[in-house]
Amino acid sequence: MVVKSAEEWRRISNSILQAAGAPGDLAAIVTDHLVDASLMGHDSHGLVRLILYTERIRNGMIVAGARPEIIRDTPVSAQVDAHWGFGQVAGHFGTELVVEKAMRNGLALVGVVGCNHLGCMGVYPALAAEKGVVLLALTGGLSKVMVPYGGKEGRLDTNPIAVGSPAAGHDPLLVDMATSEIATGKLHLAKKTGRMLPPGCLVDREGKPSVDPDDYYDGGALLPFGGHKGYALAVAVAVLAGPLLNAEGFAAPDGRHWGLFLLGIDSGLFRPSGEYRKAVDELFSRIKSSAPAEGFKEVLVPGEPAARTRETRLREGIPMAEEIWEAVRKTAEGAGVSLK
Amino acid sequence: MVVKSAEEWRRISNSILQAAGAPGDLAAIVTDHLVDASLMGHDSHGLVRLILYTERIRNGMIVAGARPEIIRDTPVSAQVDAHWGFGQVAGHFGTELVVEKAMRNGLALVGVVGCNHLGCMGVYPALAAEKGVVLLALTGGLSKVMVPYGGKEGRLDTNPIAVGSPAAGHDPLLVDMATSEIATGKLHLAKKTGRMLPPGCLVDREGKPSVDPDDYYDGGALLPFGGHKGYALAVAVAVLAGPLLNAEGFAAPDGRHWGLFLLGIDSGLFRPSGEYRKAVDELFSRIKSSAPAEGFKEVLVPGEPAARTRETRLREGIPMAEEIWEAVRKTAEGAGVSLK
Repeated sequence: MVVKSAEEWRRISNSILQAAGAPGDLAAIVTDHLVDASLMGHDSHGLVRLILYTERIRNGMIVAGARPEIIRDTPVSAQVDAHWGFGQVAGHFGTELVVEKAMRNGLALVGVVGCNHLGCMGVYPALAAEKGVVLLALTGGLSKVMVPYGGKEGRLDTNPIAVGSPAAGHDPLLVDMATSEIATGKLHLAKKTGRMLPPGCLVDREGKPSVDPDDYYDGGALLPFGGHKGYALAVAVAVLAGPLLNAEGFAAPDGRHWGLFLLGIDSGLFRPSGEYRKAVDELFSRIKSSAPAEGFKEVLVPGEPAARTRETRLREGIPMAEEIWEAVRKTAEGAGVSLK
Repeated sequence: MVVKSAEEWRRISNSILQAAGAPGDLAAIVTDHLVDASLMGHDSHGLVRLILYTERIRNGMIVAGARPEIIRDTPVSAQVDAHWGFGQVAGHFGTELVVEKAMRNGLALVGVVGCNHLGCMGVYPALAAEKGVVLLALTGGLSKVMVPYGGKEGRLDTNPIAVGSPAAGHDPLLVDMATSEIATGKLHLAKKTGRMLPPGCLVDREGKPSVDPDDYYDGGALLPFGGHKGYALAVAVAVLAGPLLNAEGFAAPDGRHWGLFLLGIDSGLFRPSGEYRKAVDELFSRIKSSAPAEGFKEVLVPGEPAARTRETRLREGIPMAEEIWEAVRKTAEGAGVSLK
């Protein structure tokens, strides 16, 4: 395991992204996002993505210098064309915009289209919560990654749902989940380490239940979490982050299209924000007052695991597996950066 | 099985509710809702509720003549005090209000507080979809019904999520689901018929997995659907339908408080509504094009099962189990209505 401080990782990420062609200010946004994701423990959506993003800049999927543009604008809504730049640049632009509009008018909806991989979806609600705004962030669409309930062919992506809210003294609420039973990151990891997955995660190319990650890569697909309920949510996400935003109207030349649905609500819309935050703390305390079930030490609320990991990693550094570090080094060298 | 047409049920429901003290216009709203729920196949939230509601009018939980009042109002938001009248009256008032505001300003959020049982949550997005509005409806809070993930004591209610969207030629999108593995209606039914539940639905008073509905009534609790993910959604719903709306600030004298979060989005916000609806149809077609898995005849999208049941029941009538019909008759007699 290679362990480096958040600051060291920040320098590494910035130099790789800039060497790959990103302007300094955009490299900084992507870097902050990747470091944040890794600090929260979402390693599959953190610094490891430097490898993929550098490759995508080279093959033209990511336009490293593209800047988001507002193409429709009302006091409570905006449509943003990301012009196929970094997903994080688009996501942060959209989040700042929706936060500003929500603070001014009570609530707002921003739809970002033409965007690349958004990174760790939980980063956006976490940023909004810092500003006192409740945020619902949805992204996803159709692909071959996940089967519909009752189907055996992949038709949906992992269509994640992220929700955040400020609290008072407590860690903010933070929900960040794929609507598939497992995220693709876990699948890749299982494949890489040769481990089997728990039952209920995937089907093989014939649509039969499997625990072998190889079956996914051989034409299989992931399963929605929670059966027909997770499937229903995945379809709702596909509608809200797709047709509603007109994501397909801003497809890349190769046909790719992708949207990000960002709904912001001023936490002080119906009562003073400070009072609201205290009520959230109180609600969390009541949930956490349940005695733990067998095998658990305590009840956690959504957001606590990530907040604790962040605290530890800020203190002890962010770890990375040796072989991934080697790949990052190779990526850096390919871009002309030498990392010791 | 007793089978009656929607029109017959409507007459029965109206006469019972009016005899129990509801003004004619409010009885009609509740009646339409109950008939709609039963038409869609949500029997546990349909006409059977006449029994409970009549009882609750008698014991003062439902104030049969109360009318919702707008207590905060902006172009894109409103807070509505339902004054502990019928939940359906509050829900329909809120839905009409949010639809009107969304059509005028692109999107809107209405928070209803001080409301009773809302009936079938799917009815609200279905109504909004008819008007061309995408609706997200959330309700719920804390109770002893459901354990938090990792806990063994009930701390959450079943905190349902409902989402709807218009389509063009296709049945509208309609998601309507409890965040518990099963709704309490299914639990009551299993208890009544002496049947065991599938694994994963509940825990006994010690927090141990159980399939026996009696264990629930003996101090046990339901489990969230999909493990920690369903739990995370249940907590988010509790925050959005509770503290955000200041639901606890409008508690009944006995301490009960309850809120309904209604977010409406004009389906024509980012593109012409007709174009949007066609894109939804297209998305549904692509999902449905998956070959069915073993044991399934076809892939359905959320909303199709309810739409099909409605079609059948409009043609063939709405069935009710004999013993429930007997209880409805007794309820009617208690209120001074004689049903043959």
